[in-house]
Amino acid sequence: MAEIKDKSIEVFLGELASMSATPGGGSAAALMGAQAAALVSMVCNLTIGKPKYAAVAEDMKILLMRSETLRLELLEMIKADVDVFNKLMNCYGLVKATDEEKAERSLQIQAVLKEATLVPLACAKACSGVLLLSKEAAEKGNVNVVSDAGVAVMSAYAGLKSAALNVYINAGSLKDRDFAEEQLENLGLVMKGAEVSTEEIYQLVKEKL
Amino acid sequence: MAEIKDKSIEVFLGELASMSATPGGGSAAALMGAQAAALVSMVCNLTIGKPKYAAVAEDMKILLMRSETLRLELLEMIKADVDVFNKLMNCYGLVKATDEEKAERSLQIQAVLKEATLVPLACAKACSGVLLLSKEAAEKGNVNVVSDAGVAVMSAYAGLKSAALNVYINAGSLKDRDFAEEQLENLGLVMKGAEVSTEEIYQLVKEKL
Repeated sequence: MAEIKDKSIEVFLGELASMSATPGGGSAAALMGAQAAALVSMVCNLTIGKPKYAAVAEDMKILLMRSETLRLELLEMIKADVDVFNKLMNCYGLVKATDEEKAERSLQIQAVLKEATLVPLACAKACSGVLLLSKEAAEKGNVNVVSDAGVAVMSAYAGLKSAALNVYINAGSLKDRDFAEEQLENLGLVMKGAEVSTEEIYQLVKEKL
Repeated sequence: MAEIKDKSIEVFLGELASMSATPGGGSAAALMGAQAAALVSMVCNLTIGKPKYAAVAEDMKILLMRSETLRLELLEMIKADVDVFNKLMNCYGLVKATDEEKAERSLQIQAVLKEATLVPLACAKACSGVLLLSKEAAEKGNVNVVSDAGVAVMSAYAGLKSAALNVYINAGSLKDRDFAEEQLENLGLVMKGAEVSTEEIYQLVKEKL
């Protein structure tokens, strides 16, 4: 089967809408993050090389490297969400006729649930990274494309809040509460201040329009 | 050239990131709206036909028709943004050697700017429509996929706020201030309460996880 990133937008959206459990919100979160990173890159690419913005060209080149790294990471995460979901479904499908099988099945489910907690947490972290980059794009980038930095921040924020939902679900099903609490704490750190920053960056963009 | 919706996600994101002015934030806004609508449809499709949700099956069928209509509308808007941008660029490229040519060029620019204000306004309206639908999906849909309704609301909200930026820009360049103010007022109505609703729907989803 073709990877999601190789599918057309129309086909992807059709599959998202369908009654198939994948792709779902986790892939959509990663796509929003990747799209946000792409928009930061666009602002950089339309700033670097312009005489008017020569003073920030070096900053924009570094910003571009960062946004492109996150873009590629988030593009891979579109698939990672589907992979870990399928892995989890396979575990739930394991036979549980004997007590031994039940115990083994439960162990495997719990192991994959840890993974299913870490995958959206990584997505949330990457989206939060893009959110920070969108601020620099809005502050220093070519003012003619500042609205694209504004779309980037909204897209990154939506990706972050969306990925968080999948962390909450899977962490909630974990028996290893120490691990779960640790990951929820990590998520809390990632999300801290995101709403305020998003609003600030959006307002900065609006003032520059 | 292939339409954006027919391009793969990877190719689309690469073009978004590139130094080409299109696709840009307007297409990204429409994609977020379309994705949000697709997620509402997904919740409906995974609710209709389940015995446990028989009581809401009819509501879910109506919701699905609405979300699918908006999904297709927003899918077309990915392209509409590029089309109107190109039209505007063509106008800016018109010769302006004589006073007559200057006047004609200005008239044409202003006419297309009106269109370039209405296109993202329509996108904002459609995103706001999806936002409302995501509430019903969160309230009545299969609780196993309630997180997808949560991703839908964040995606719709990001699409709405992103489309708004393009309304602000283009309305700001309009000489016909009555028309501009009217559209900004329309946008204000569309955006009214969106932030509060988004937060409420997101919290509702979180409590149901």
